Amino acid sequence: MHLTTSPRIRKSPFYDSVVADRASAWTVYNKMLLPLSFGDLAAEYDRLVNGVAVWDVAAERQVEISGTDAHAAAQYLSARDLSKMVEGQGKYVAMCDHDGRLLNDPVLLKLSGGRYWFSLADHDMLLWCKAVAAERGFDVEVSEPDVSPLAVQGPLAEDVVADLCGDWVRDLKYFWFREVDIAGIPAVVCRSGWSKQGGFELFLQDGARGNDLYGLVKEAGAPYGIGPGAPNHVERVESGLLSWGGDTTYDTNPFEAGMGRYVDVDCEPDYIGKAALQRVAADGPERLLTGLVLDADTRSAWPLEERMAVRLEGEQVGTMSAVVRSPRLGRTIAIAQIRRSIVEARTPVMVDSPAGPQRAKIHDLPFV
Amino acid sequence: MHLTTSPRIRKSPFYDSVVADRASAWTVYNKMLLPLSFGDLAAEYDRLVNGVAVWDVAAERQVEISGTDAHAAAQYLSARDLSKMVEGQGKYVAMCDHDGRLLNDPVLLKLSGGRYWFSLADHDMLLWCKAVAAERGFDVEVSEPDVSPLAVQGPLAEDVVADLCGDWVRDLKYFWFREVDIAGIPAVVCRSGWSKQGGFELFLQDGARGNDLYGLVKEAGAPYGIGPGAPNHVERVESGLLSWGGDTTYDTNPFEAGMGRYVDVDCEPDYIGKAALQRVAADGPERLLTGLVLDADTRSAWPLEERMAVRLEGEQVGTMSAVVRSPRLGRTIAIAQIRRSIVEARTPVMVDSPAGPQRAKIHDLPFV
Repeated sequence: MHLTTSPRIRKSPFYDSVVADRASAWTVYNKMLLPLSFGDLAAEYDRLVNGVAVWDVAAERQVEISGTDAHAAAQYLSARDLSKMVEGQGKYVAMCDHDGRLLNDPVLLKLSGGRYWFSLADHDMLLWCKAVAAERGFDVEVSEPDVSPLAVQGPLAEDVVADLCGDWVRDLKYFWFREVDIAGIPAVVCRSGWSKQGGFELFLQDGARGNDLYGLVKEAGAPYGIGPGAPNHVERVESGLLSWGGDTTYDTNPFEAGMGRYVDVDCEPDYIGKAALQRVAADGPERLLTGLVLDADTRSAWPLEERMAVRLEGEQVGTMSAVVRSPRLGRTIAIAQIRRSIVEARTPVMVDSPAGPQRAKIHDLPFV
Repeated sequence: MHLTTSPRIRKSPFYDSVVADRASAWTVYNKMLLPLSFGDLAAEYDRLVNGVAVWDVAAERQVEISGTDAHAAAQYLSARDLSKMVEGQGKYVAMCDHDGRLLNDPVLLKLSGGRYWFSLADHDMLLWCKAVAAERGFDVEVSEPDVSPLAVQGPLAEDVVADLCGDWVRDLKYFWFREVDIAGIPAVVCRSGWSKQGGFELFLQDGARGNDLYGLVKEAGAPYGIGPGAPNHVERVESGLLSWGGDTTYDTNPFEAGMGRYVDVDCEPDYIGKAALQRVAADGPERLLTGLVLDADTRSAWPLEERMAVRLEGEQVGTMSAVVRSPRLGRTIAIAQIRRSIVEARTPVMVDSPAGPQRAKIHDLPFV
């Protein structure tokens, strides 16, 4: 499908570099072009799972909260207890509306000077955070800073980032970070990324230096065979990573999205959606995110353009939001949101597909 | 540029119809696919300016406000006096943040039962409206309803819509509407649309009937030579129609965006951004949206992929956000946001272009 570009859709600071690396497929994410492939999906998967890849994920935009009430505002916006969070630490948090529905699943970073960054999935959360802060009277500044993540992902990522930044990165715990400069380029180095293959995100803090940083990463990665990549659809399904807005809809709560273990329902002070989430926690969610293993090989269905129905005896009991052929499992696997009783009983279901109805079995997430 | 589709990017209720009509270029707008061309831009322009076209603009999503405080909430969200607004009436309104910056430029419709629809440009305003309503304690429901506009645009649009819905549509005033059913399909017929060529938007109220409605419009339009089209980049520049997020940035206020005449700065009761907008109204905006006529023929620069600098003696004094070759003027024209003193003095400027710097003269909007 041909995408017409325009000033309404932003280019990342790494844009020229990924074009030079022959990005061949794109999406629009937080009103920014996000490259999705470089022409050889199998090689990109292999690089991620067995080597190291560099990803332009600048479209993961940040909302920064700073000022006197920054901590109170970040807490109110997050369905997770932040009281023990310290500078240099990140946490995966659910941001919910007042009815407990999931608006976003960012990593929240606590920076020096009492600032916070929500590192966001595709939803204009700047609007949400600004409205809440202003109407509630928090003494904060809410902005989208000039911060653009560049991910280094894969089992060899640590070697690459250690060569680039120093061996101290090897000691970073998951979601912890340090504010540094890399050959004069201001950045935050965080052990994070939208894969389960290990790696780091370098949060570039000067949009004018994007291609410089990309070049430094490529140079440091050359001895390790680094190549371009992107958030990988197959790996993310195998790893059971949530795609907000893909696997979720406007009425999904975090318990239904597999984020229950990150929600501190009784957290004090209050957070948005607390009463609703306490009810869901008490009653249990109506649906659960789950894996499916399909009987058939539906390789031709990839990528799924829209959600497909999951059925039991003809009745729709859920929706399937991603389906891929897993190289590591040799099976066709999927992610779906299905009525809880069916998931818990592991009842076999049928899923719609372009090739007609397919039998599928419930499987825990992640698959690998 | 190849766009990869996925469940995260929605399909419109008219999707199958526009694919059958050979949509050839797309954008993503409010997380929905919006067709931009059907392969012959010159014919599409001609149809819009001289005939009639049908446009899938379902991506213009609605936020509905209903409930006891619906009027109070709609007023608080709008920098315009709504006190005299009646059911069946629409108004073009500026939605601003607490600092008076423009978040959106919707048409606001007042429906039966005290409901309001904000018919929106590309920004997740559901987040904004929900946060403001909940935090301020308005007794309202805020939702995205199943409502998808289909536009009929061009000088023959009135004949087509009159044949389809009845001659009463000829008496509708601009932005006024009526709730009807069209052969059993629930819809709102409004005299509106993102062109200056005249026309209507049919707000479909049942997503399952999209292709039926599209078919009925095509059938009614056949005697008038109707064909597919889309919001037309060339016509919108000639007509000086604002593209929120294209011509504006996060720090643009409505006076800088050419919306000053729609802002009732001293409106009672209060609306969001009032104090800031009163200051801008008193001092005058720092920048103005203006037309430019370029000396050169920069046809090859279309479409502009990103904003270009406007300069005076080397110094950047503004940004150009659209440039087209105007068939009606036989000139290359542009839309830019430029320092007010320069626009008011009509000082010639230079603009950056892929073909190098170009001389340009200030021109009032609209061009035609």
